[in-house]
Amino acid sequence: MTDLSIAQSVALAPIKSVATRLGIAEDDLELYGKHKAKLPLALIDAEKMARAQLILVTAMTPTPAGEGKTTMSIGLSDGLNKLGKRAIAVLREPSVGPVFGAKGGATGGGHAQVGPLVDINLHFTGDFSAVEKANNLLASLIDNALHTPGHPLNLDPRAVLWKRVIDLNDRSLRDIIIGLGGKANGVMRSDGFNITAASEVMAILCLATSLADLKAKLGNILVGFTYTNEPVYARQLKAEAAMAILLRDALQPNLVQTLEGNPALVHGGPFANIAQGTNTVLATRMGLSLGDYVVTEAGFGADLGAEKFLNIKCGYAALAPAALVMVATIRALRHHGGAPPVEINTPDLARCEQGFANLEKHLENAQKFGFQPVVAINHFVSDTAEEVALVQRLCQNMGVQAVVSTSWAEGGAGATRLAEAVLASIASGANRFRPLYAWDQPIKAKIETIAREIYGAAGVDYSPKAEADIRRINRLGFAHLPICMAKTQKSFSDNEKLIGRPVGFRVTVREFELATGAGFVIPLLGSLLRMPGLPAVPASEGMDIDDDGVITGLS
Amino acid sequence: MTDLSIAQSVALAPIKSVATRLGIAEDDLELYGKHKAKLPLALIDAEKMARAQLILVTAMTPTPAGEGKTTMSIGLSDGLNKLGKRAIAVLREPSVGPVFGAKGGATGGGHAQVGPLVDINLHFTGDFSAVEKANNLLASLIDNALHTPGHPLNLDPRAVLWKRVIDLNDRSLRDIIIGLGGKANGVMRSDGFNITAASEVMAILCLATSLADLKAKLGNILVGFTYTNEPVYARQLKAEAAMAILLRDALQPNLVQTLEGNPALVHGGPFANIAQGTNTVLATRMGLSLGDYVVTEAGFGADLGAEKFLNIKCGYAALAPAALVMVATIRALRHHGGAPPVEINTPDLARCEQGFANLEKHLENAQKFGFQPVVAINHFVSDTAEEVALVQRLCQNMGVQAVVSTSWAEGGAGATRLAEAVLASIASGANRFRPLYAWDQPIKAKIETIAREIYGAAGVDYSPKAEADIRRINRLGFAHLPICMAKTQKSFSDNEKLIGRPVGFRVTVREFELATGAGFVIPLLGSLLRMPGLPAVPASEGMDIDDDGVITGLS
Repeated sequence: MTDLSIAQSVALAPIKSVATRLGIAEDDLELYGKHKAKLPLALIDAEKMARAQLILVTAMTPTPAGEGKTTMSIGLSDGLNKLGKRAIAVLREPSVGPVFGAKGGATGGGHAQVGPLVDINLHFTGDFSAVEKANNLLASLIDNALHTPGHPLNLDPRAVLWKRVIDLNDRSLRDIIIGLGGKANGVMRSDGFNITAASEVMAILCLATSLADLKAKLGNILVGFTYTNEPVYARQLKAEAAMAILLRDALQPNLVQTLEGNPALVHGGPFANIAQGTNTVLATRMGLSLGDYVVTEAGFGADLGAEKFLNIKCGYAALAPAALVMVATIRALRHHGGAPPVEINTPDLARCEQGFANLEKHLENAQKFGFQPVVAINHFVSDTAEEVALVQRLCQNMGVQAVVSTSWAEGGAGATRLAEAVLASIASGANRFRPLYAWDQPIKAKIETIAREIYGAAGVDYSPKAEADIRRINRLGFAHLPICMAKTQKSFSDNEKLIGRPVGFRVTVREFELATGAGFVIPLLGSLLRMPGLPAVPASEGMDIDDDGVITGLS
Repeated sequence: MTDLSIAQSVALAPIKSVATRLGIAEDDLELYGKHKAKLPLALIDAEKMARAQLILVTAMTPTPAGEGKTTMSIGLSDGLNKLGKRAIAVLREPSVGPVFGAKGGATGGGHAQVGPLVDINLHFTGDFSAVEKANNLLASLIDNALHTPGHPLNLDPRAVLWKRVIDLNDRSLRDIIIGLGGKANGVMRSDGFNITAASEVMAILCLATSLADLKAKLGNILVGFTYTNEPVYARQLKAEAAMAILLRDALQPNLVQTLEGNPALVHGGPFANIAQGTNTVLATRMGLSLGDYVVTEAGFGADLGAEKFLNIKCGYAALAPAALVMVATIRALRHHGGAPPVEINTPDLARCEQGFANLEKHLENAQKFGFQPVVAINHFVSDTAEEVALVQRLCQNMGVQAVVSTSWAEGGAGATRLAEAVLASIASGANRFRPLYAWDQPIKAKIETIAREIYGAAGVDYSPKAEADIRRINRLGFAHLPICMAKTQKSFSDNEKLIGRPVGFRVTVREFELATGAGFVIPLLGSLLRMPGLPAVPASEGMDIDDDGVITGLS
């Protein structure tokens, strides 16, 4: 059974009835077909939010296949509902590009999915398209200013920072020259397209707390510099209102459901390296207003996803998780214990034990944020009872409960024990969230804290470019912003080969980017791919749609 | 009052109730919010279609401001409804790009509008985004094939015909180089972006008669040539299924309403020069299945819009209009009588009489297609009674009734006399549509027929490139396709300076394009702008959105 065939075997309830169970009046729904709806921001209610509990799902350092955070979040939410709790999964929405590449979609897996699968993985409610349009409108306004003789902004075409975006895997657009063909076609300059999820507009949409805040943040985007090296912001192009108009509907959270008919909000999908990698603040708040428990996730391993969730998103949105779930897999433990890729599905107690060092560090990190985490072992058929027992014992030694979840195979029923453990963790009062650093510290101090405390690095080095960038950030007055680290997700370090729990390493900040609209400083600890390519045989070749519109080969 | 403020002063009915009046069950509606819905293709009914009447609204050669075909179509439909008839306006959907440029949106004007204005002019139901995505997925598959060593298609990067598209006015993307930055970034080649409305995918969406037909047409797109000069079609990249998947929802017609609450279908928006410039076949058929009268329009003047509607769309869709309305304005008559731009709003009986030659030729052309047209004079405040009487008398001399419509100012009430005239025209039995040429004639014979009969040209010249293109079209086996002329809309000739009714001129075909997916051959009679630019002060600068989401400055 593929994820798609499982999804197609389930008849989703009308989204109206899902909304009714949440106490939402039909008139408050903006339906997008029968199984998707946008919700008005007026449903966000501070009092209800204060009474609800936020559960953050994060993970150990993943293998390339991913360890199933989305599947686990959906399963946990379904499991809580099975226990009679009013829980809502609040998740990112997937990017279209990878659907036609190698990665596929991102609506969970097996029996722990949100649906409708095809809709969510493709156009959904148009949010990605709106982000793309707003991003590219700003780009066209920039080039139009360059093209207009005597434009008052005096923008330097060599100093434009803003890139265009497209939600496709299209390597040919990474590095391009635009404005060719003579005077009528604008100013020739170097440019490139990123994938839409990498747009700062997406990061902004996901951090905005209201339409007014969205507009203000859009206006604060740094688009480039003048010939005299002065910063130019989007508001100087009078771009922010038009961009906010394009994003008006996209700002509203999307209501969908799990395959078990439980509510899910799927809204916003920023990158997890150069951005915060988690769903919108408004969807999280909406979830907390509509349910008693919100299960949410943050991209990549906890060194990236949870760190940013807790230091950036919680800071901007005044959120405090009541529990933290750390997803682990036996295969990832084997991987960090040294198993080569062809052997990660081969039982190996010794490698598992050695690989535990990676999970152990993530658990220690969670404790630094004030959490007593719950480990969720995402069950695979190749797991042996001995391996699972080993991990549970090693966790127990740290005072951490590790619970096996079989929600991929069994849906919510496979996650009730996990749900019980999470509820117990919340009830214990042991979780007292505190951020890792104060935003008003100097840039280097904040980076040093993350690198030493979370990564376990011995120190941080800065390239000359990075030192110059820090001086510029200070000069522009943005030293007070939180840090959004851009680093490989494959290692605690900035070297993806260093698996497990590396020690004694140093990390190098090569340069910085500045997301003044979203409100964070991005140290780049390596080269990042912001535009994926297609494989030699793209997934699109295996897709089909019959005359009745039934789709196959999409996942 | 702006169009937006008029639109905002009207409370639209729930689209569900508009649908109910059409006899559509609620379960058949795919709602997109409260005021938009997609309709399932199953509502198309051949029997009902056969009983309904199709009314084509076209126009004399327009001034740059346009003569109000959309406004007139909406007004006429409202007028027919005022007379108790079940009429539906079936129209194109607007492009986003021009909304932020100089042209603005395209939902009619004054009291003859379709709504919701902001939604329809921006993302609407995502159709344009879907076309863009499908178009650009094909582009990325092409570049991925070029990038893949030893790819069996042997595609020549210098012979790729397929362009990327974006729905923005962005001159800097007209002429670009992609694939820079080394081996990882694909093959370097010359490329460019067109505006989305210019995509052949849009033309295909608008001519497709079913999902299966859509997929077949997408597969037939000619994307380029091999190193040995053999054609390469999209189906050879196995692209058509994935593209059809992206377009599945976009294929369904969109139901909206006029400000008077009458139903309107707004679906598809192809260019009127390099494409057919009229809404989808499926929306037209849907309208004929749901109402007794469908009022539709075709882009630009009748020499382009009506000619293509009648020779291409009616051929592919087996449609036969029951009446033809020719929109004229006194200001356009003055223009064609020689009034300079600053004087087209100045009453001038002599210029009006001289300019009538333009309208006269369009009326003669309509007669060649078997119609006894009705002239709709779109009323402006600067029109004098003498000018109007003159035009009516000159029309009368041709046996043609000319009726003043004031639907811009008065809505349907301002178009009831026009509606009566159209009903009388239908009832008279005088309209017997026949196409102008047989598709199986040679390419040159078809072009010659259009140029001589419709444009009034003395003959057609071909550049050496055009001659070579014809040989290639013949070699590839596409000589049997209908002709889609790409010519300035400002003149009957290919020289936009030749206003009025030029005679004795020859037109020159510079080269050809081949839309093998959409199914037509495109002779280019001039240079065409497929990617507009923004003005020095873009419309976006004057837009705003307040904290409650109320938008101003957009039209």
